[in-house]
Amino acid sequence: MTHLPALNSTAGQIPRGVADYFWEEAFRRRALEQTLLRHFRRWGYSDVLPPTFEYADTIAARGNRALQSEMCRFLDRDGSMLALRVDMTIAVARLVGTRLHDWAMPQRFCYAGSVFRDVEPRAGQQREFRQAGVELIGSAAPEADAEVLALTASALRDLHLADFRIVVGQMQYFDGLLQALQLGPERRALLQQAIDRNSEAELASFMQGATFTRRQQRAVQELPALSGPDIPHILARAERLCLNTTMHAAVLNLRAICAVLAAYGVLDHVSLDLTEIHNLGYYTGITFEALAPGVGYRLASGGRYDNLVGSFGPPQPAVGVAFGLERLLLALPQRATHTPGPLAPDILVATHNDPRCFALIEYARGLGLHVAVAFGPHSDGALWTVAQRQGIACALEWHDEEAWLYEKSATSQPFARTVNDPAALRQRLLTLAHTKHGDMPDAGQQGGSL
Amino acid sequence: MTHLPALNSTAGQIPRGVADYFWEEAFRRRALEQTLLRHFRRWGYSDVLPPTFEYADTIAARGNRALQSEMCRFLDRDGSMLALRVDMTIAVARLVGTRLHDWAMPQRFCYAGSVFRDVEPRAGQQREFRQAGVELIGSAAPEADAEVLALTASALRDLHLADFRIVVGQMQYFDGLLQALQLGPERRALLQQAIDRNSEAELASFMQGATFTRRQQRAVQELPALSGPDIPHILARAERLCLNTTMHAAVLNLRAICAVLAAYGVLDHVSLDLTEIHNLGYYTGITFEALAPGVGYRLASGGRYDNLVGSFGPPQPAVGVAFGLERLLLALPQRATHTPGPLAPDILVATHNDPRCFALIEYARGLGLHVAVAFGPHSDGALWTVAQRQGIACALEWHDEEAWLYEKSATSQPFARTVNDPAALRQRLLTLAHTKHGDMPDAGQQGGSL
Repeated sequence: MTHLPALNSTAGQIPRGVADYFWEEAFRRRALEQTLLRHFRRWGYSDVLPPTFEYADTIAARGNRALQSEMCRFLDRDGSMLALRVDMTIAVARLVGTRLHDWAMPQRFCYAGSVFRDVEPRAGQQREFRQAGVELIGSAAPEADAEVLALTASALRDLHLADFRIVVGQMQYFDGLLQALQLGPERRALLQQAIDRNSEAELASFMQGATFTRRQQRAVQELPALSGPDIPHILARAERLCLNTTMHAAVLNLRAICAVLAAYGVLDHVSLDLTEIHNLGYYTGITFEALAPGVGYRLASGGRYDNLVGSFGPPQPAVGVAFGLERLLLALPQRATHTPGPLAPDILVATHNDPRCFALIEYARGLGLHVAVAFGPHSDGALWTVAQRQGIACALEWHDEEAWLYEKSATSQPFARTVNDPAALRQRLLTLAHTKHGDMPDAGQQGGSL
Repeated sequence: MTHLPALNSTAGQIPRGVADYFWEEAFRRRALEQTLLRHFRRWGYSDVLPPTFEYADTIAARGNRALQSEMCRFLDRDGSMLALRVDMTIAVARLVGTRLHDWAMPQRFCYAGSVFRDVEPRAGQQREFRQAGVELIGSAAPEADAEVLALTASALRDLHLADFRIVVGQMQYFDGLLQALQLGPERRALLQQAIDRNSEAELASFMQGATFTRRQQRAVQELPALSGPDIPHILARAERLCLNTTMHAAVLNLRAICAVLAAYGVLDHVSLDLTEIHNLGYYTGITFEALAPGVGYRLASGGRYDNLVGSFGPPQPAVGVAFGLERLLLALPQRATHTPGPLAPDILVATHNDPRCFALIEYARGLGLHVAVAFGPHSDGALWTVAQRQGIACALEWHDEEAWLYEKSATSQPFARTVNDPAALRQRLLTLAHTKHGDMPDAGQQGGSL
């Protein structure tokens, strides 16, 4: 949120956990969304726009307890319970499971939009936030996991994010360990918590009550060490600790994925973390999150969910990633000269309601220039004062017989000049457009780059 | 909605009045949104992203009874009543009224996003639909009304919509008439209904019970005729019928706006309709809607709302327009060759997990080409079969020592060839990209045109 005076009227408040975004912040968010969607489409993904709300059961039956408790629910007129979407993955899985299962696999979908989590108000925690991401449905091949990971790395690299890391876990490794240990529900929860919190003390206390074989003991105690950027070392160690085929399959899967990531040229950005057992409730294979140094939250996260589509229709393996747009924007380099206020247009024009002036404005807009019309009569020079106050670098004052063009010169000293020749004015506008778009007039076609 | 087999499982249904959009339909919607936002920005408008839900009172207190009954309401954890936004105008008015009132006026905002109306299920009526539009706040000048009308016309023209019309009314004219007639609430409602339904019989029955002066009688009876494309004629006639300064002000306002519209060169698209008294509850001056021949609904609608911002903070006159994206998409010319199915990427590639192939793919994506990777081993030629089945015009099969490139030739007969030279492959991709983007590689930067 751009920082501005607080609300001065209770009548105009907005609910906690949502925000108005406007001016540059709103523009950057739109542009980021657009940049990511363009990226996804180049990787062969097709747009999907799921509804903002679904039957609550559709979501609740697929999420874990935390996700269920964070749904924004409301009653439909007919008495059924609805909920705002908590992510896009469940909706895309529903769509493929119910309506697209007869189409060729794999299917690739990309999206961007708001998702909603009814979290307790905490610093920075929003109830509405925007995600952009992809779902790759219909392939269990490690190449599919690698594609989604490489797409994530490539998107972050294209955004000029300095030094990000993608930390990859594999749910099956820990699942296999739990199977091998044959724990009761309580002991299971204890171990999960110890690993989740990465707590040596809790792990030690868990081990005290245990009657494990030596190999089991080692597999538990060395699990916290299976984390870091040295992928060959971690995989070798993880392999030695395997207690069953499930754990072995997890290691083989990671090895295969990393081989493809090496071919993509993105392995330098990847770390492994076999203690990563976080889950939205539907992940079944790899899980991952993208992190940046000095940024205390995930920029993107995702994983494999092979059972989700099957809960709606014929089963299909799947893997996906979601980027958090608000978080990404915080992590991206900001304009150094950022001051709060509306985005200044390129030109402010007093038109004198002259058709020739409107034709000129149309020409300028066609070049991609942002042109605002100034209303009301202006005394000589007043328009330029208004323009300067609003950070607008160029003003055009149209009169019956002549036009006055005001511009900041290279030395930052404004100058005004009379231009009677429409051809000369157009030439000047063309130059402005070239300067704005870096000599690529067509760049003006863009939603704007970041 | 792309037409596909109906849902085959109740577990995967979605609520009535919402829809999944995907493939080309979703892409067209995104592209349209992007095209409109780009248009708005060129007119000097800044992005705004209001929250998806607000306090219900914020909306209810500003809308008419119909709007109030169509709100999707739900309870917040703290017991307050929330509602999904019914439009963007109220939110933008709230934002300016509460937080931006100290910034220079006029302020220009543009948006695109879903809005929600809990309508009874009817053919084609959706509860969630997407709008894009602008709000111009802080000017009461007719130039401001004209700007929003001209922006509407210019947007529709840029979308190559053949033959649209913008029908403009003025709330004040009818308000002035009601003042002059000094009707009780029942008689008032009768007259409103007769005018609203354009019913001669109802108007005649209303006139029977009336004790009007001759001038009043004429003003009522001739009102239905104040509608059509002959603007000078309608304005002259409307002027003659005026009973007070309110009605006069409405005519003068329309005359001034039309003069500016003539200068913009869009008056040919404009009709007047002084019987247009529809209202969301907050319009105070002009109201308008954009229509296209053979399309039975409004493509865009808007109007002046001078009291809305003031209900949140210091008063500001304002005018705005909202385009209905679903409706616009239905009205726009469709691709002739449209077949349902995923949007085909430009190239399908079997990579053999070779870094040189991934580098080539990265190069192709950098050119704006949409490249999908094919997973799993393919026997010779199988990849091309897969590609053709999915409507993909080019396939690349990478082997250790050579690459096979399959393409549809000019005569639609596919051909394959071996390309061992990476430079030759890159050259071929460059040609493909130029063909795709009409020799403007940079067009690939776009979200896609319609």
